[in-house]
Amino acid sequence: MISSRSKRTINLFARLPGVGEKTAQRYLLYLLTAEDELAAELGRELVELRQHLRPCDLCGNIAEIDSLEAAAICTICSDSKRDKTLLCVVARVHDLLAIERAGSMRGRYFVLGKLLSPLEGVGPEDLPIERLLVRVKKEGIQEIICATPPSVDGEATALLLKRELAPFGVTLSRIASGVPHGGDLEFADPITMGRALAGRQRL
Amino acid sequence: MISSRSKRTINLFARLPGVGEKTAQRYLLYLLTAEDELAAELGRELVELRQHLRPCDLCGNIAEIDSLEAAAICTICSDSKRDKTLLCVVARVHDLLAIERAGSMRGRYFVLGKLLSPLEGVGPEDLPIERLLVRVKKEGIQEIICATPPSVDGEATALLLKRELAPFGVTLSRIASGVPHGGDLEFADPITMGRALAGRQRL
Repeated sequence: MISSRSKRTINLFARLPGVGEKTAQRYLLYLLTAEDELAAELGRELVELRQHLRPCDLCGNIAEIDSLEAAAICTICSDSKRDKTLLCVVARVHDLLAIERAGSMRGRYFVLGKLLSPLEGVGPEDLPIERLLVRVKKEGIQEIICATPPSVDGEATALLLKRELAPFGVTLSRIASGVPHGGDLEFADPITMGRALAGRQRL
Repeated sequence: MISSRSKRTINLFARLPGVGEKTAQRYLLYLLTAEDELAAELGRELVELRQHLRPCDLCGNIAEIDSLEAAAICTICSDSKRDKTLLCVVARVHDLLAIERAGSMRGRYFVLGKLLSPLEGVGPEDLPIERLLVRVKKEGIQEIICATPPSVDGEATALLLKRELAPFGVTLSRIASGVPHGGDLEFADPITMGRALAGRQRL
Protein backbone atom coordinates (compact mmCIF):
# COMPACT_ATOMS: atom_id res chain seq x y z
CA MET A 1 0.00 0.00 0.00
CA ILE A 2 2.35 2.71 -1.20
CA SER A 3 1.26 5.77 -3.18
CA SER A 4 1.92 5.96 -6.90
CA ARG A 5 4.28 8.90 -6.55
CA SER A 6 6.44 7.11 -3.97
CA LYS A 7 6.41 4.09 -6.26
CA ARG A 8 7.67 6.27 -9.12
CA THR A 9 10.51 7.74 -7.06
CA ILE A 10 11.44 4.27 -5.82
CA ASN A 11 11.55 2.92 -9.38
CA LEU A 12 13.82 5.75 -10.48
CA PHE A 13 16.21 5.21 -7.56
CA ALA A 14 16.20 1.47 -8.30
CA ARG A 15 17.67 2.16 -11.75
CA LEU A 16 20.93 3.27 -10.12
CA PRO A 17 23.61 0.58 -10.09
CA GLY A 18 23.42 -1.79 -7.11
CA VAL A 19 20.16 -0.27 -5.84
CA GLY A 20 17.23 -2.65 -5.36
CA GLU A 21 13.70 -1.87 -4.31
CA LYS A 22 14.44 -1.99 -0.58
CA THR A 23 17.41 0.35 -0.79
CA ALA A 24 15.41 2.71 -3.01
CA GLN A 25 12.62 2.69 -0.43
CA ARG A 26 15.16 3.45 2.29
CA TYR A 27 16.43 6.47 0.35
CA LEU A 28 12.88 7.73 -0.16
CA LEU A 29 11.91 7.38 3.49
CA TYR A 30 15.10 9.11 4.54
CA LEU A 31 14.45 12.00 2.17
CA LEU A 32 10.87 12.30 3.43
CA THR A 33 11.56 12.23 7.13
CA ALA A 34 15.15 13.32 7.75
CA GLU A 35 17.05 16.37 6.53
CA ASP A 36 14.68 19.04 5.31
CA GLU A 37 16.30 20.39 2.20
CA LEU A 38 18.25 17.35 0.96
CA ALA A 39 15.61 16.05 -1.47
CA ALA A 40 15.18 19.42 -3.19
CA GLU A 41 18.92 20.14 -3.26
CA LEU A 42 19.82 16.76 -4.72
CA GLY A 43 16.90 17.11 -7.12
CA ARG A 44 18.06 20.48 -8.44
CA GLU A 45 21.58 19.14 -8.85
CA LEU A 46 20.38 16.13 -10.83
CA VAL A 47 18.01 18.06 -13.09
CA GLU A 48 20.94 20.07 -14.42
CA LEU A 49 23.56 17.35 -14.16
CA ARG A 50 23.85 16.45 -17.81
CA GLN A 51 23.90 20.09 -18.84
CA HIS A 52 26.97 20.86 -16.76
CA LEU A 53 28.95 17.65 -16.64
CA ARG A 54 30.05 15.66 -19.67
CA PRO A 55 32.81 13.20 -20.51
CA CYS A 56 36.04 15.07 -21.37
CA ASP A 57 36.53 15.27 -25.14
CA LEU A 58 40.15 14.22 -24.75
CA CYS A 59 40.27 11.57 -22.03
CA GLY A 60 36.72 10.64 -21.06
CA ASN A 61 37.01 11.83 -17.43
CA ILE A 62 34.15 13.96 -16.06
CA ALA A 63 34.45 17.53 -17.31
CA GLU A 64 32.52 20.60 -16.22
CA ILE A 65 31.12 22.68 -19.06
CA ASP A 66 29.54 26.13 -19.25
CA SER A 67 27.25 25.54 -22.20
CA LEU A 68 26.14 22.59 -24.31
CA GLU A 69 28.14 23.91 -27.28
CA ALA A 70 31.39 24.40 -25.38
CA ALA A 71 34.22 21.87 -25.64
CA ALA A 72 34.47 19.64 -22.59
CA ILE A 73 38.02 19.48 -21.25
CA CYS A 74 38.55 18.08 -17.74
CA THR A 75 40.77 19.57 -15.06
CA ILE A 76 43.43 16.90 -15.59
CA CYS A 77 43.73 17.43 -19.34
CA SER A 78 43.87 21.21 -18.91
CA ASP A 79 46.45 21.03 -16.11
CA SER A 80 49.67 22.40 -17.61
CA LYS A 81 51.78 20.89 -14.82
CA ARG A 82 50.95 17.35 -15.97
CA ASP A 83 53.50 15.50 -18.08
CA LYS A 84 52.04 15.60 -21.60
CA THR A 85 54.29 12.80 -22.86
CA LEU A 86 52.92 10.24 -20.37
CA LEU A 87 49.48 8.69 -20.88
CA CYS A 88 47.68 6.19 -18.64
CA VAL A 89 45.04 4.03 -20.38
CA VAL A 90 42.18 2.85 -18.14
CA ALA A 91 38.95 0.97 -18.70
CA ARG A 92 36.57 3.19 -16.76
CA VAL A 93 36.39 6.62 -15.11
CA HIS A 94 36.19 4.79 -11.76
CA ASP A 95 39.69 3.43 -12.43
CA LEU A 96 40.99 6.87 -13.32
CA LEU A 97 39.65 8.25 -10.02
CA ALA A 98 41.19 5.34 -8.09
CA ILE A 99 44.60 6.05 -9.65
CA GLU A 100 44.21 9.76 -8.92
CA ARG A 101 43.55 8.96 -5.27
CA ALA A 102 46.93 7.22 -5.12
CA GLY A 103 48.38 10.58 -6.19
CA SER A 104 51.48 9.28 -7.97
CA MET A 105 50.39 9.50 -11.61
CA ARG A 106 51.90 12.67 -13.08
CA GLY A 107 50.69 12.20 -16.68
CA ARG A 108 47.26 12.30 -18.27
CA TYR A 109 44.65 9.65 -19.03
CA PHE A 110 42.67 7.92 -21.72
CA VAL A 111 39.44 6.14 -20.77
CA LEU A 112 38.57 3.24 -23.08
CA GLY A 113 35.02 2.94 -21.77
CA LYS A 114 35.04 -0.83 -22.18
CA LEU A 115 37.37 -3.80 -22.42
CA LEU A 116 37.91 -6.29 -25.21
CA SER A 117 35.58 -9.18 -24.41
CA PRO A 118 34.98 -11.94 -26.96
CA LEU A 119 32.48 -13.54 -24.58
CA GLU A 120 30.36 -10.39 -24.44
CA GLY A 121 30.86 -9.67 -28.13
CA VAL A 122 33.13 -6.65 -27.64
CA GLY A 123 35.73 -6.66 -30.44
CA PRO A 124 38.67 -4.33 -31.24
CA GLU A 125 36.40 -2.22 -33.44
CA ASP A 126 34.25 -1.37 -30.38
CA LEU A 127 37.17 0.28 -28.57
CA PRO A 128 38.24 3.89 -29.27
CA ILE A 129 41.69 2.74 -30.46
CA GLU A 130 41.66 5.17 -33.40
CA ARG A 131 41.14 8.13 -31.05
CA LEU A 132 44.00 6.89 -28.89
CA LEU A 133 46.37 6.59 -31.87
CA VAL A 134 45.45 10.11 -33.01
CA ARG A 135 46.37 11.42 -29.57
CA VAL A 136 49.66 9.51 -29.56
CA LYS A 137 50.62 11.02 -32.91
CA LYS A 138 49.36 14.53 -32.27
CA GLU A 139 50.52 15.03 -28.69
CA GLY A 140 53.95 13.48 -28.93
CA ILE A 141 53.21 10.90 -26.27
CA GLN A 142 56.31 8.86 -25.40
CA GLU A 143 55.13 6.52 -22.66
CA ILE A 144 51.87 4.70 -22.16
CA ILE A 145 50.93 2.87 -18.97
CA CYS A 146 48.23 0.29 -19.55
CA ALA A 147 46.18 0.23 -16.34
CA THR A 148 43.36 -2.06 -17.47
CA PRO A 149 42.44 -4.50 -14.70
CA PRO A 150 44.44 -7.74 -14.27
CA SER A 151 41.52 -9.85 -15.56
CA VAL A 152 41.15 -11.93 -18.74
CA ASP A 153 39.48 -9.01 -20.56
CA GLY A 154 41.96 -6.51 -19.13
CA GLU A 155 44.94 -8.59 -20.29
CA ALA A 156 43.41 -9.13 -23.73
CA THR A 157 42.93 -5.36 -24.05
CA ALA A 158 46.55 -4.79 -22.99
CA LEU A 159 47.74 -7.17 -25.74
CA LEU A 160 45.58 -5.36 -28.29
CA LEU A 161 47.14 -2.04 -27.24
CA LYS A 162 50.60 -3.58 -27.59
CA ARG A 163 49.85 -4.64 -31.16
CA GLU A 164 48.24 -1.34 -32.18
CA LEU A 165 50.92 0.82 -30.59
CA ALA A 166 53.90 -1.19 -31.94
CA PRO A 167 54.43 1.05 -35.04
CA PHE A 168 54.65 4.22 -32.94
CA GLY A 169 57.77 3.47 -30.91
CA VAL A 170 56.21 4.49 -27.57
CA THR A 171 57.27 2.81 -24.33
CA LEU A 172 54.33 0.65 -23.23
CA SER A 173 54.13 -0.72 -19.70
CA ARG A 174 51.57 -2.61 -17.66
CA ILE A 175 50.69 -1.97 -13.99
CA ALA A 176 52.05 -4.60 -11.58
CA SER A 177 49.81 -7.42 -10.40
CA GLY A 178 50.50 -9.30 -7.17
CA VAL A 179 49.56 -9.68 -3.51
CA PRO A 180 47.91 -6.38 -2.43
CA HIS A 181 49.36 -4.20 0.33
CA GLY A 182 48.27 -5.58 3.70
CA GLY A 183 47.09 -8.76 1.99
CA ASP A 184 47.78 -12.12 3.55
CA LEU A 185 49.78 -14.55 1.39
CA GLU A 186 47.73 -17.39 2.85
CA PHE A 187 44.58 -16.05 1.20
CA ALA A 188 46.00 -15.01 -2.16
CA ASP A 189 44.52 -16.99 -5.05
CA PRO A 190 46.93 -19.10 -7.16
CA ILE A 191 46.88 -16.71 -10.14
CA THR A 192 47.68 -13.69 -7.98
CA MET A 193 50.42 -15.65 -6.23
CA GLY A 194 51.84 -16.75 -9.58
CA ARG A 195 51.90 -13.14 -10.74
CA ALA A 196 53.52 -11.97 -7.52
CA LEU A 197 56.31 -14.50 -8.07
CA ALA A 198 56.72 -13.83 -11.80
CA GLY A 199 56.78 -10.08 -11.20
CA ARG A 200 59.39 -10.23 -8.44
CA GLN A 201 61.91 -7.41 -8.33
CA ARG A 202 65.49 -7.35 -7.13
CA LEU A 203 65.92 -5.88 -3.65
CA MET B 1 41.03 15.73 -9.50
CA ILE B 2 37.27 15.90 -9.71
CA SER B 3 35.36 19.03 -10.61
CA SER B 4 33.60 21.04 -7.91
CA ARG B 5 30.14 20.32 -9.32
CA SER B 6 30.70 16.55 -9.32
CA LYS B 7 32.05 16.89 -5.79
CA ARG B 8 28.85 18.67 -4.77
CA THR B 9 26.60 15.99 -6.29
CA ILE B 10 28.71 13.26 -4.67
CA ASN B 11 28.44 14.96 -1.27
CA LEU B 12 24.66 15.17 -1.58
CA PHE B 13 24.35 11.51 -2.56
CA ALA B 14 26.64 10.58 0.33
CA ARG B 15 24.13 12.03 2.79
CA LEU B 16 21.70 9.22 1.95
CA PRO B 17 21.72 6.37 4.47
CA GLY B 18 24.37 3.74 3.80
CA VAL B 19 25.92 5.69 0.92
CA GLY B 20 29.64 6.46 1.19
CA GLU B 21 31.82 8.47 -1.15
CA LYS B 22 32.55 5.56 -3.46
CA THR B 23 28.91 4.57 -3.89
CA ALA B 24 27.98 8.22 -4.44
CA GLN B 25 30.66 8.46 -7.12
CA ARG B 26 29.32 5.30 -8.73
CA TYR B 27 25.81 6.80 -8.89
CA LEU B 28 27.17 10.01 -10.41
CA LEU B 29 29.21 8.20 -13.08
CA TYR B 30 26.23 6.04 -13.94
CA LEU B 31 23.97 9.07 -14.29
CA LEU B 32 26.55 10.80 -16.49
CA THR B 33 27.29 7.96 -18.84
CA ALA B 34 24.37 5.54 -18.84
CA GLU B 35 20.66 6.18 -19.30
CA ASP B 36 20.06 9.55 -20.90
CA GLU B 37 17.09 10.93 -19.06
CA LEU B 38 17.45 9.27 -15.65
CA ALA B 39 19.34 12.11 -13.93
CA ALA B 40 16.82 14.75 -15.00
CA GLU B 41 13.81 12.55 -14.24
CA LEU B 42 15.04 11.61 -10.79
CA GLY B 43 16.00 15.23 -10.22
CA ARG B 44 12.52 16.55 -11.07
CA GLU B 45 10.96 13.94 -8.82
CA LEU B 46 13.18 14.87 -5.87
CA VAL B 47 12.75 18.64 -6.26
CA GLU B 48 9.01 18.25 -5.69
CA LEU B 49 9.18 15.30 -3.33
CA ARG B 50 8.47 17.09 -0.08
CA GLN B 51 5.65 19.09 -1.64
CA HIS B 52 3.72 15.98 -2.61
CA LEU B 53 4.60 13.38 -0.04
CA ARG B 54 4.30 13.84 3.71
CA PRO B 55 3.89 11.60 6.73
CA CYS B 56 0.21 10.69 7.20
CA ASP B 57 -1.41 12.87 9.90
CA LEU B 58 -3.00 9.81 11.46
CA CYS B 59 -0.48 6.98 11.26
CA GLY B 60 2.84 8.38 9.99
CA ASN B 61 2.93 6.31 6.78
CA ILE B 62 3.80 8.13 3.55
CA ALA B 63 0.81 10.06 2.27
CA GLU B 64 0.34 11.82 -1.05
CA ILE B 65 -1.01 15.37 -0.82
CA ASP B 66 -2.33 17.83 -3.37
CA SER B 67 -1.29 21.03 -1.62
CA LEU B 68 0.81 21.98 1.37
CA GLU B 69 -2.33 23.08 3.27
CA ALA B 70 -4.27 19.85 2.68
CA ALA B 71 -4.51 17.19 5.35
CA ALA B 72 -2.24 14.24 4.68
CA ILE B 73 -4.10 10.94 4.98
CA CYS B 74 -2.45 7.81 3.57
CA THR B 75 -4.15 5.17 1.45
CA ILE B 76 -4.28 2.73 4.37
CA CYS B 77 -5.97 5.14 6.78
CA SER B 78 -8.49 6.19 4.13
CA ASP B 79 -9.27 2.60 3.12
CA SER B 80 -12.81 1.95 4.36
CA LYS B 81 -12.37 -1.83 4.04
CA ARG B 82 -9.74 -1.86 6.80
CA ASP B 83 -10.82 -2.91 10.27
CA LYS B 84 -10.95 0.36 12.23
CA THR B 85 -10.94 -1.38 15.60
CA LEU B 86 -7.54 -3.04 15.02
CA LEU B 87 -4.32 -1.01 15.26
CA CYS B 88 -0.77 -2.18 14.66
CA VAL B 89 1.95 -0.13 16.38
CA VAL B 90 5.33 -0.10 14.63
CA ALA B 91 8.62 1.72 15.16
CA ARG B 92 9.29 2.91 11.61
CA VAL B 93 7.56 3.26 8.24
CA HIS B 94 9.94 0.55 6.96
CA ASP B 95 8.34 -1.87 9.41
CA LEU B 96 4.84 -0.87 8.29
CA LEU B 97 5.80 -1.58 4.67
CA ALA B 98 7.33 -4.94 5.61
CA ILE B 99 4.09 -5.94 7.38
CA GLU B 100 2.03 -4.76 4.40
CA ARG B 101 4.13 -6.96 2.11
CA ALA B 102 3.07 -9.97 4.19
CA GLY B 103 -0.50 -8.99 3.32
CA SER B 104 -2.23 -10.39 6.39
CA MET B 105 -2.74 -7.25 8.47
CA ARG B 106 -6.34 -6.10 8.01
CA GLY B 107 -6.30 -3.17 10.45
CA ARG B 108 -4.53 0.16 10.41
CA TYR B 109 -1.20 1.40 11.76
CA PHE B 110 0.50 3.79 14.12
CA VAL B 111 4.16 4.67 13.52
CA LEU B 112 6.00 5.63 16.70
CA GLY B 113 8.98 7.06 14.82
CA LYS B 114 11.41 5.89 17.49
CA LEU B 115 11.80 3.36 20.29
CA LEU B 116 12.31 3.85 24.00
CA SER B 117 16.07 3.79 24.47
CA PRO B 118 17.58 4.79 27.80
CA LEU B 119 21.06 4.34 26.30
CA GLU B 120 20.38 6.86 23.56
CA GLY B 121 18.45 9.16 25.85
CA VAL B 122 15.01 8.46 24.37
CA GLY B 123 12.45 8.50 27.20
CA PRO B 124 8.67 7.94 27.26
CA GLU B 125 8.10 11.67 26.76
CA ASP B 126 9.86 11.47 23.36
CA LEU B 127 7.34 8.97 21.98
CA PRO B 128 3.95 10.08 20.57
CA ILE B 129 2.06 8.10 23.23
CA GLU B 130 -0.42 10.93 23.79
CA ARG B 131 -1.41 10.87 20.09
CA LEU B 132 -1.83 7.11 20.27
CA LEU B 133 -4.09 7.33 23.34
CA VAL B 134 -6.22 10.00 21.64
CA ARG B 135 -6.69 7.66 18.67
CA VAL B 136 -7.60 4.74 20.93
CA LYS B 137 -10.27 6.83 22.67
CA LYS B 138 -11.63 8.59 19.59
CA GLU B 139 -11.69 5.72 17.12
CA GLY B 140 -13.00 2.97 19.36
CA ILE B 141 -9.93 0.79 18.88
CA GLN B 142 -10.37 -2.60 20.53
CA GLU B 143 -7.20 -4.46 19.70
CA ILE B 144 -3.60 -3.29 19.44
CA ILE B 145 -0.78 -5.40 18.03
CA CYS B 146 2.60 -4.20 19.19
CA ALA B 147 4.97 -4.91 16.29
CA THR B 148 8.06 -3.16 17.62
CA PRO B 149 11.19 -5.25 16.91
CA PRO B 150 12.18 -8.08 19.28
CA SER B 151 15.18 -6.11 20.57
CA VAL B 152 15.88 -4.59 24.00
CA ASP B 153 14.48 -1.21 22.91
CA GLY B 154 11.55 -2.85 21.13
CA GLU B 155 10.63 -4.87 24.21
CA ALA B 156 10.98 -1.85 26.49
CA THR B 157 8.65 0.09 24.21
CA ALA B 158 6.15 -2.78 24.26
CA LEU B 159 6.15 -2.71 28.08
CA LEU B 160 5.61 1.05 28.06
CA LEU B 161 2.62 0.59 25.72
CA LYS B 162 1.24 -2.08 28.07
CA ARG B 163 1.41 0.32 31.02
CA GLU B 164 -0.04 3.27 29.15
CA LEU B 165 -2.85 1.28 27.54
CA ALA B 166 -3.86 -0.59 30.70
CA PRO B 167 -6.66 1.88 31.67
CA PHE B 168 -8.34 1.58 28.27
CA GLY B 169 -9.32 -2.06 28.30
CA VAL B 170 -7.98 -2.80 24.81
CA THR B 171 -6.59 -6.22 23.91
CA LEU B 172 -2.82 -5.78 23.54
CA SER B 173 -0.71 -8.43 21.83
CA ARG B 174 2.90 -8.73 20.75
CA ILE B 175 4.15 -10.27 17.47
CA ALA B 176 5.74 -13.71 17.87
CA SER B 177 9.52 -14.05 18.07
CA GLY B 178 11.29 -17.31 17.20
CA VAL B 179 13.24 -19.16 14.53
CA PRO B 180 12.45 -17.50 11.16
CA HIS B 181 10.81 -19.41 8.30
CA GLY B 182 13.47 -21.35 6.42
CA GLY B 183 15.93 -20.70 9.26
CA ASP B 184 18.20 -23.44 10.50
CA LEU B 185 17.88 -24.28 14.20
CA GLU B 186 21.60 -24.94 14.28
CA PHE B 187 22.33 -21.27 13.58
CA ALA B 188 19.65 -19.67 15.77
CA ASP B 189 21.15 -17.58 18.59
CA PRO B 190 20.34 -18.62 22.19
CA ILE B 191 17.88 -15.77 22.77
CA THR B 192 15.92 -16.56 19.59
CA MET B 193 15.91 -20.25 20.49
CA GLY B 194 14.74 -19.46 24.01
CA ARG B 195 11.90 -17.38 22.58
CA ALA B 196 10.98 -20.09 20.08
CA LEU B 197 10.65 -22.56 22.97
CA ALA B 198 8.82 -20.20 25.32
CA GLY B 199 6.40 -19.21 22.54
CA ARG B 200 5.60 -22.80 21.54
CA GLN B 201 2.02 -23.48 20.51
CA ARG B 202 -0.05 -26.62 20.79
CA LEU B 203 -0.28 -28.61 17.54
